[in-house]
Amino acid sequence: MEPLDGKGLAQEIQARLKDEILDLKARTGRVPGLAVVLVGADPASRTYVKSKEKAAAELGIFSRVVRLGTDAGREELIARIQELNRAKEVSGVLVQLPLPKKFPVWDILDHLDPAKDVDCFHPFNLGMVLLNRAHLFPCTPAGVMALIDHYKLDVTGMNALVVGRSFIVGKPLFTMLSNRDATVTLCHSKTRDLGSLVKRADLVVAAVGRPAVITADMIKDGAIVIDVGTNYLDKRDEVRQYCDESQQEKFEKKGYAYAGDIHYPAYDKASFYTPVPGGVGPMTVAMLMQNTVELFKKGLAPGQ
Amino acid sequence: MEPLDGKGLAQEIQARLKDEILDLKARTGRVPGLAVVLVGADPASRTYVKSKEKAAAELGIFSRVVRLGTDAGREELIARIQELNRAKEVSGVLVQLPLPKKFPVWDILDHLDPAKDVDCFHPFNLGMVLLNRAHLFPCTPAGVMALIDHYKLDVTGMNALVVGRSFIVGKPLFTMLSNRDATVTLCHSKTRDLGSLVKRADLVVAAVGRPAVITADMIKDGAIVIDVGTNYLDKRDEVRQYCDESQQEKFEKKGYAYAGDIHYPAYDKASFYTPVPGGVGPMTVAMLMQNTVELFKKGLAPGQ
Repeated sequence: MEPLDGKGLAQEIQARLKDEILDLKARTGRVPGLAVVLVGADPASRTYVKSKEKAAAELGIFSRVVRLGTDAGREELIARIQELNRAKEVSGVLVQLPLPKKFPVWDILDHLDPAKDVDCFHPFNLGMVLLNRAHLFPCTPAGVMALIDHYKLDVTGMNALVVGRSFIVGKPLFTMLSNRDATVTLCHSKTRDLGSLVKRADLVVAAVGRPAVITADMIKDGAIVIDVGTNYLDKRDEVRQYCDESQQEKFEKKGYAYAGDIHYPAYDKASFYTPVPGGVGPMTVAMLMQNTVELFKKGLAPGQ
Repeated sequence: MEPLDGKGLAQEIQARLKDEILDLKARTGRVPGLAVVLVGADPASRTYVKSKEKAAAELGIFSRVVRLGTDAGREELIARIQELNRAKEVSGVLVQLPLPKKFPVWDILDHLDPAKDVDCFHPFNLGMVLLNRAHLFPCTPAGVMALIDHYKLDVTGMNALVVGRSFIVGKPLFTMLSNRDATVTLCHSKTRDLGSLVKRADLVVAAVGRPAVITADMIKDGAIVIDVGTNYLDKRDEVRQYCDESQQEKFEKKGYAYAGDIHYPAYDKASFYTPVPGGVGPMTVAMLMQNTVELFKKGLAPGQ
C-alpha cells in the first residue's frame, strides 16, 4: 500500500518546466502563455482557476484569465475565445468546465482552435489520442499515466478497469491505457455488478465524482488503485462516512474536507494507490503546465 | 443460435438507399459519388474494390476508381487524393487499405478531406465518434451496430468484449458500444487469458483477422457472437481445421473458402451469431453506400 505521490511528482515536473521556460525565454525572448475563460462564479471552478493561475505564475508562464458573468451571452463568450485563439502571447486556451447550463458545452468548445486546445478536448485532438498518434493528452489522464510511469508500473497485459466515461477523464484514459497494452474495461452508470468487475481488476481507476463508488470489499488484493475524484464535503455525517482521519481533522478546523471516489479503506488492500488529496489532483495542474509549454514550443518557428 | 442475416439486411438497406437516391436525383439533378483509390494489385483489395463498385452501380451511385501501380510515388498518390477532394461529383473518397508497405498509412490518409472521409478514419471524425457526437461512423462498426439494432438486441448493461484494437473496427466499435451503454472490454495481442474474459461476455466481437482466435469452449451459453473476420483459406488442412461443411464444399469446388475469427462450433452456444460469409461483410459494403449518401446530402445547399 505505497502511495503514489502526485504532489511530489507534480512539484518535480514543475521544477523541470520552470528551468525549461527560463531556457526558452533566453533563447526566444518569449514565454509560454495560458488563457483561461471562466464563466460565472461557481466556487469550485474559481478555486481551480486560481490554482492554475498560481502554478503558471510560479513557473514563469504568462497567464490571462477572462472572467465573464453568468449573464454573458453566447456571442460574447465565443468572441472572447476567438480573440484568445488569435492572441500571439497565448500558447494555450481553456474554458473552465462546467459552463453554466444555458451553454451547450460543444457549442462553445468547438470554437477553440485545435492548435491552442491545451485541455486536449477537441474532436481532432481526442481522435489523435484514440489513434495512438497524439503528442498532447488531456491533463488528468496524462497525470495518471505520468504517475504510473514514474513508479515504473508496467500495465502491459494488466486487466484495467476505468469507472466513468467522461470525455475529460474516462474515455481518453481508457484509450491511453489500451494503447499501452492494458486490457481495459470501461464502466459507467449502466454497468451491472460493478463489484465483481472491480474484483478482477489489476488496476482500477475511478473517475465518477461521487464518494465511495468503489469500496474496500470490491478491491482485489494487490491491485493498483487510482482515484481521480476530489469530492468536496461540508456535512459532518458525510465527512464521517467518507473521509479518513486526516480529512476529518481538517473538517473540524476548516469546515470542509475531501474524499475520493474510492473509499479510503480500499487503500489497505492496494499495492499502490493515489491519495486524495495529493494524488491525481496536483498532477492535473502539472500536466496543464506541461501542455502549455508543449504548445508554445510547437508554435516556435523551426530552429528557434 | 439464430443467425444475424447480414446479407439480407444489407440488401434491405441498399434497396431503401436506391429509392432515396432516385428521389435525390429527381430533386437535385445529381447523384451521390464514391471515389476509391486503389494502389497495387493485392487480390483481396481488388475483390473488395470491385464489390464496392458493383454495389454503387446497382444503387445509382456514381463511382470512380483511381488505380495506381505499386510504383506510384507518394506525391502522385497525394495529388490524386487532393483532386478527388475537390471533385464536385465525388461525395466520398476512400483509400483502399492496406496500402503497399512503403506508404506510412497516415502520411497518406491525412490528405483526405474530413468532409469526404467516407470511411470515417480521419482523427476529427473518429474523435466525434469517441465523443458520441458523430453522424458518420466507420463502415464495419456501423454495420455491426445496424445488425444489433435490426434484431432489437438491447446492449444496455451487457458485458461486451471486443477483440482487436484496429482503428478500422475494434477502437471505434468499442466506443460505439460504450456510448450505447454496454460495459465494454477491449482485448488485443497482449491480453492475458482471453478465454476467461470471453467466458464472462454477453456479447463477443472478434476483429483480429486470424481464424479460430475464439473457440467454442470460450463462449458463454447464450452469448451474442459477432464475427468480423473473413479469412481467405486455400490450403486443405486449414480449410478442414477452420471451415464448416458448406465452406469445405466450396473449397472442393473452387479451391478456396472463408473462415471467421470465431471457430464455427461456437455458434451452437450463441443466442445470435453472424455467419461468415454473409454476416458482417455485406453490412460493411451497405454502410459504405449509406455513408456516401449521407455525405452527398450533407453537401447539398440548404433547402435542396
